[in-house]
Amino acid sequence: MAYKVMKNISVIGFDADDTLWENEMLFRNTEEAFFRLLEGYEVKHRLSQELFKAEIANLSTYGYGIKGFMLSMIETALKITDHRIEAQRITQIIELGRKMLAAPVEIIKSVPETLACLKEKYRLILVTKGDLLEQQRKLKISNLEGYFHHIEILSDKTPAQYRRLLAHLDIKPQNFAMVGNSLKSDVLPPIELGCKGIHIPFHTTWSHEQVTEEAKQNSDYLELDTISELLNYF
Amino acid sequence: MAYKVMKNISVIGFDADDTLWENEMLFRNTEEAFFRLLEGYEVKHRLSQELFKAEIANLSTYGYGIKGFMLSMIETALKITDHRIEAQRITQIIELGRKMLAAPVEIIKSVPETLACLKEKYRLILVTKGDLLEQQRKLKISNLEGYFHHIEILSDKTPAQYRRLLAHLDIKPQNFAMVGNSLKSDVLPPIELGCKGIHIPFHTTWSHEQVTEEAKQNSDYLELDTISELLNYF
Repeated sequence: MAYKVMKNISVIGFDADDTLWENEMLFRNTEEAFFRLLEGYEVKHRLSQELFKAEIANLSTYGYGIKGFMLSMIETALKITDHRIEAQRITQIIELGRKMLAAPVEIIKSVPETLACLKEKYRLILVTKGDLLEQQRKLKISNLEGYFHHIEILSDKTPAQYRRLLAHLDIKPQNFAMVGNSLKSDVLPPIELGCKGIHIPFHTTWSHEQVTEEAKQNSDYLELDTISELLNYF
Repeated sequence: MAYKVMKNISVIGFDADDTLWENEMLFRNTEEAFFRLLEGYEVKHRLSQELFKAEIANLSTYGYGIKGFMLSMIETALKITDHRIEAQRITQIIELGRKMLAAPVEIIKSVPETLACLKEKYRLILVTKGDLLEQQRKLKISNLEGYFHHIEILSDKTPAQYRRLLAHLDIKPQNFAMVGNSLKSDVLPPIELGCKGIHIPFHTTWSHEQVTEEAKQNSDYLELDTISELLNYF
């Protein structure tokens, strides 16, 4: 089988959450525990809807990350029970969030070997969005920091934020490829700037990161099953 | 009066909170509102002690910023009332935090003129710590972004974080001066690396940012009353 080698690329950017290490499952599992905590008050389906609504409504104020998620869970619990919730439950919700903040980092299969191999020929940078302290903690315990020439933690991954980053690092769009599990955050914005985008879907994607079929069809990106397949193209 | 001009400096770093714009008063005023909310349960003095204890205990987990402060207020309210608090009060605490997240930014006197003047001869960078999204929002509405060649938001201001920043921006310590209201975060760490440190105290300083008299006496920094006095040295 013949692979199309990526030409003119000198810098490869990697997303972190659900690209290098697992993240989404931690949120899904915490949601399940949150639903169980409140099962005496409301059915899971309604709780799930209300929590998602709160998260989206809070995104511009709280941003991405666990602390905002904790506050969204607390707000949902207060609202859905019409303030009839026992105060003890709020403490239990905070405990759920604290567990997330201290959770171990599960590296996705083949990540270290693939990064080690690519680092020989390319400058690798980490481009993640979310909470500064939370992402720094995960990076530190991941033991992956040494593979990266630069670490950038953005509050959001918009084309404007990618443009600023490339300018700051003096990278031409045509020399940059970005790899990640989210079409919306990792693939489509860099492509819009003239970079290459490589999509490696993770088995679970947060609804907010989903894109339309139309957006998918109008974009020219490479889709891979696993990160190690990058070595066929680079 | 003869002033000692700062020699060999090419880059000046500025702290943001309580150096360029007011911040601490927002926290102090919110604390007062929080104490009033709970005055039926506990005296102000005890509430203040417990809140500070929670904030310090949570610093390594939540980091600096308003979302962590909101969670610390909620935890303090739950703990101090032994979970007897009405759920409605938790919603009111969240509202206090939301007001902080949307608060206007009060620029400190003479800041824009001083930055405009210094920008003619020096490269200015902004070095702030805290929550990414919160600091970006304030910077945006401050209209001060244009004065800075680079913006760096750190999770904490340790000597190691300053060292990494200077290396990343290719700045030699002897060519860098850092200006800020916190001796602990803005002045002593850069001096430790061989940079210049300039202290401009703000009328209110969070207890956590206080340093000992000994640390003050062993450090050689310049202390100014107002930011415009920088123009006498640069």
